[in-house]
Amino acid sequence: MIDYRLLQALVAVVQQGGFERAARQLHLTQSAISQRIRQLEEQLGQPVLLRSTPPEPTALGLRLCNHFQQVRQLEAGLGLDAEASAQQVIRLTTNADSLATWLPAALAEVESESGIQVQYELVVEDQDVGLRRMKRGEVMACLCSSAQPVNGGKVAALGSMRYRALLSPGLRQASAALIPDAVHQIPCLVFNRDDRLQHRFLKEQLGLEQEPQQIHLCPSSEGFVQMARAGLGFGMVPELQVQALLASGALVDLIPGRWLDIPLYWHCWQTESPLLALLRQAVIRQAATSLSSA
Amino acid sequence: MIDYRLLQALVAVVQQGGFERAARQLHLTQSAISQRIRQLEEQLGQPVLLRSTPPEPTALGLRLCNHFQQVRQLEAGLGLDAEASAQQVIRLTTNADSLATWLPAALAEVESESGIQVQYELVVEDQDVGLRRMKRGEVMACLCSSAQPVNGGKVAALGSMRYRALLSPGLRQASAALIPDAVHQIPCLVFNRDDRLQHRFLKEQLGLEQEPQQIHLCPSSEGFVQMARAGLGFGMVPELQVQALLASGALVDLIPGRWLDIPLYWHCWQTESPLLALLRQAVIRQAATSLSSA
Repeated sequence: MIDYRLLQALVAVVQQGGFERAARQLHLTQSAISQRIRQLEEQLGQPVLLRSTPPEPTALGLRLCNHFQQVRQLEAGLGLDAEASAQQVIRLTTNADSLATWLPAALAEVESESGIQVQYELVVEDQDVGLRRMKRGEVMACLCSSAQPVNGGKVAALGSMRYRALLSPGLRQASAALIPDAVHQIPCLVFNRDDRLQHRFLKEQLGLEQEPQQIHLCPSSEGFVQMARAGLGFGMVPELQVQALLASGALVDLIPGRWLDIPLYWHCWQTESPLLALLRQAVIRQAATSLSSA
Repeated sequence: MIDYRLLQALVAVVQQGGFERAARQLHLTQSAISQRIRQLEEQLGQPVLLRSTPPEPTALGLRLCNHFQQVRQLEAGLGLDAEASAQQVIRLTTNADSLATWLPAALAEVESESGIQVQYELVVEDQDVGLRRMKRGEVMACLCSSAQPVNGGKVAALGSMRYRALLSPGLRQASAALIPDAVHQIPCLVFNRDDRLQHRFLKEQLGLEQEPQQIHLCPSSEGFVQMARAGLGFGMVPELQVQALLASGALVDLIPGRWLDIPLYWHCWQTESPLLALLRQAVIRQAATSLSSA
């Protein structure tokens, strides 16, 4: 069995961003904290913490921190420990576009319903890569576009986000001769190298096999919209995020009536703490009002 | 001297996301590409590419890709090579909040002025950490809040972004008893562990030494705003980004009249290609209209 006192020291150092602050939080001396971290590393035979400023957990350290929080949540479900039930950390991955639109309202519901102070640690990952972190045990839940549960996990279908291929009216006019048969020659915005939405749109909606020729990488939901507004390229943007810009005409469709509906799924573990069950229910409710049914 | 034919193969694999597509781009066979990468690694005695799907550059590989692009830009300045001048990659780090607000307009100017197809590769880093990537040679320019040039680099002051401590009217009302002397007890939004803005606001503007007690980590500019709107906490938000929400009252000041002005600086290398000089000038011009003078 893991020595949870040692783990608690690790979590405190990571959360507080330093040994001194961790010591203050746990009412210990700084050397007691260092000793606990060393002891943990000796027991495991591997480093759990990089001694940088601030200290960073190793991959193993991150898995341990996450495990510790899950244990604390299960403890809180027992209702025995006032301290454990008072404040809880939920670490989850989400695609950037959900975080930029409908997810925060769901997160906000949990606290008022549970009466527990929740601390969210959100990790933004592209549609398809967040699950890897869940498999590695780095996060407790994952919002992404894969329907396939991880081992020991379960999945809830949430509905679809509608992505429209949008650009500025100026760029659309300048590119008119390229629409629809040479759309791959129009500059294209891509969230990151894992983002295949733009390519999929060309292929599935327009039957174009070519890759876009000129790409801008922009790993920010709001930056993506601003890049499109500035005329730097077209990009697949969630309709939810730009309703006002569509209404005002600041962004227009590359090809009216063509879009992609991307399904979203909530992944969590089968052994779910009461708090994570509340979160799952809030996410499903909020998705039902914000997303289109799959 | 580096063998640039080998480097070109590396850059193609990274940009195209695979050996096959790189081969197509360079009109070579796939095995010729593999051979060039191996040769490069033998010459350097270190791996430059992780053979993942898609292949990822190692830290050394990324530095080489960046170096290659800088060389291409310098070549383009010679005006000798039609291919080199036709399309250029600019890789830069920016703080998320500039990308979410004023930066894209500056990026858009460069292309129309230069007549060159620019491909931007934006890397989002928090105010103070982007420079590290520039020092490691991973990016060609860096927009951040540090005034200190890197070795061989130069700096332009751009003005300041005003950050206001904002929250939902509902949370403000619920927290009224904690304002201003116990603001650290109000839940607080933090972009990531490097983000000290919220702490600085408490200390510099309110004289509170305590750290915020309940923190949500939200590494997304737009997500940050949505979390604040949903009542999950207060956060330091760029005034530029939320003018409409301030006007409608969807977000309100934690303490009216208190804010932080964060200076921004443009970092580039002293040996600057003509294209990067154009970008620097466009950034300075756009900053002058969008930011408050420092």
